Amino acid sequence: MLLTLEWKNNYLLLIDQTKLPTKLSYVKCKNYLEVADAIKKLVVRGAPAIGVTAAFGLALAALNSKTDNLKIFFEELNDAYEIIRSTRPTAVNLQWALNRIMQKINHLTNIPLIKKVIVEEAILMAEEDISTNKSIGINGAKLFSDGDTIMTHCNAGSLATVAYGTALGVVRAAKESGKKINVIATETRPVMQGSRLTAFELQHENINVCLIPDTAVGHIMAKGMIKHVVVGADRILHTGHVFNKIGTYQLAILAKTHNIPFYVVAPSSTFDLKNHPNDIVIEERSKEEVIKIGKKAVAPKNIDVINPAFDMTPPELITKIITEKGILSPPYNRSIKKLMK
Amino acid sequence: MLLTLEWKNNYLLLIDQTKLPTKLSYVKCKNYLEVADAIKKLVVRGAPAIGVTAAFGLALAALNSKTDNLKIFFEELNDAYEIIRSTRPTAVNLQWALNRIMQKINHLTNIPLIKKVIVEEAILMAEEDISTNKSIGINGAKLFSDGDTIMTHCNAGSLATVAYGTALGVVRAAKESGKKINVIATETRPVMQGSRLTAFELQHENINVCLIPDTAVGHIMAKGMIKHVVVGADRILHTGHVFNKIGTYQLAILAKTHNIPFYVVAPSSTFDLKNHPNDIVIEERSKEEVIKIGKKAVAPKNIDVINPAFDMTPPELITKIITEKGILSPPYNRSIKKLMK
Repeated sequence: MLLTLEWKNNYLLLIDQTKLPTKLSYVKCKNYLEVADAIKKLVVRGAPAIGVTAAFGLALAALNSKTDNLKIFFEELNDAYEIIRSTRPTAVNLQWALNRIMQKINHLTNIPLIKKVIVEEAILMAEEDISTNKSIGINGAKLFSDGDTIMTHCNAGSLATVAYGTALGVVRAAKESGKKINVIATETRPVMQGSRLTAFELQHENINVCLIPDTAVGHIMAKGMIKHVVVGADRILHTGHVFNKIGTYQLAILAKTHNIPFYVVAPSSTFDLKNHPNDIVIEERSKEEVIKIGKKAVAPKNIDVINPAFDMTPPELITKIITEKGILSPPYNRSIKKLMK
Repeated sequence: MLLTLEWKNNYLLLIDQTKLPTKLSYVKCKNYLEVADAIKKLVVRGAPAIGVTAAFGLALAALNSKTDNLKIFFEELNDAYEIIRSTRPTAVNLQWALNRIMQKINHLTNIPLIKKVIVEEAILMAEEDISTNKSIGINGAKLFSDGDTIMTHCNAGSLATVAYGTALGVVRAAKESGKKINVIATETRPVMQGSRLTAFELQHENINVCLIPDTAVGHIMAKGMIKHVVVGADRILHTGHVFNKIGTYQLAILAKTHNIPFYVVAPSSTFDLKNHPNDIVIEERSKEEVIKIGKKAVAPKNIDVINPAFDMTPPELITKIITEKGILSPPYNRSIKKLMK
């Protein structure tokens, strides 16, 4: 089993996802600034994975603190909180994980104890991530039949979580229950998480996978090749609006047009019960991601580019939302409220 | 004005489109095999451009023939016809151009005269291509208003024709008539004709252009940024079914979903009055186009890939078809029949 991140007592080890699929290598983070940098540069990505990574970032900030003054200690911790929180704006799990740690310790006054509690809580969150994904998998796998071909976008796999994955966790669970599942993965431009990560991790585990350009989605659906679409989520609002990798929205429209069920798969830590669609900042990333691939220029140097990292899929395009606590059906404003109370 | 191809009396000069946007260089074809190779390798691409290129391929086959035996001469010409015709199966203009040359000479018996007629006919076709595109432009430009932002896919520009372009010819004509037009170009994976060619040629002529990943089409449309979509065509059936670059079909669905007019722009040589949707072969290209960019691997080496070069857009998704002879409206089976009789 690939471990996206691993706590080594005084440092965090991350698979360097920017080097995949050509090289499986690791980045060692010894302080929270290195953690923030790894999240920004997509060394680690995927909403659940960056949540747990952020928690270990706070653990490193706490462990590295030299002060015995509680006020200064909390100031240092809050600085780390802010710097890690601001690395990426769209996924909610990052904020969720940081808040969970802070709530666990904000009433404590003994610095050595706080350090211990933060580390233990981060380790617990990493373990929970895997068990949550396995529960999601068991819930979702019931929706698939032996021989189904499933389309997925981006990477909501092992590499987007600590291990096992959300959308791909469902595929893994279906396979473990004896069903043969074929996956069609979209490349997912511009960062190519489909070709670089989903193709890599499924091939690594001998799950049938076939890659298509993002332009071929409609054509492949029209040919009747796809039974279900499964994607992850970076944030799910209480209204059922889903923020996920750019391209998810159009995939959902195309699925609906071709009468293909469209499933969003995510842990309940992805739900945002407070904000409304217009409140959410969609991260705009560098144009370099679009105009260069490695060192090769694929577009004129001075060209204007729009490069949003995420988009919003409205609830009416979503057939089911699969979580560790159960499968949600429309109307989502009601089913999410019921699940989360 | 960029000339995609230029006849130099005893050879054909082609812009090497595989080297764009980083380098504007040329390939010299001195015989028809070099022409066939250039078409196959996408040195030259775009349905109208490969039509005229094919005509010059036949011209080179004729000019290079050493025989004075008419039967042998026609055998050589037919060999060249077959080899050029089989380079790419989907675009109809290739076949159309070759047939136009053959019909012009099949009753002639004087070899030097035949050589002269073929060369003259090919030159005429190159000239007609530009004037046809200018007529298309004048017809289409009426549909655009000052300040409109237009989305286009792939490259149906100057580089897809001898010069001026079809879909981008309409943009040029609108600009020449004093309207300010902004273009949003999709990258168009896997060969990236949008980033490499459309962005290059529009920037070259100071037309506002902004590049987006293919995954951002739905998101950009949902934001209300697009007034019209214009695409070219590789083949338009008498039923109104349009074969064009992979991704066109899903662009048409997304345009319809967002109530954005979807225009197909092509010369009347693109119409296929004989075949039905199931008769058309959609070219499947090498997986190398998808798993490598330049020398950089972007996917695992042994991954399965589906890489169709084209898709089919049904008539119900098409708002208008713009040709040099006029603008067609649905029902296309009737309007195409009327136009082509």
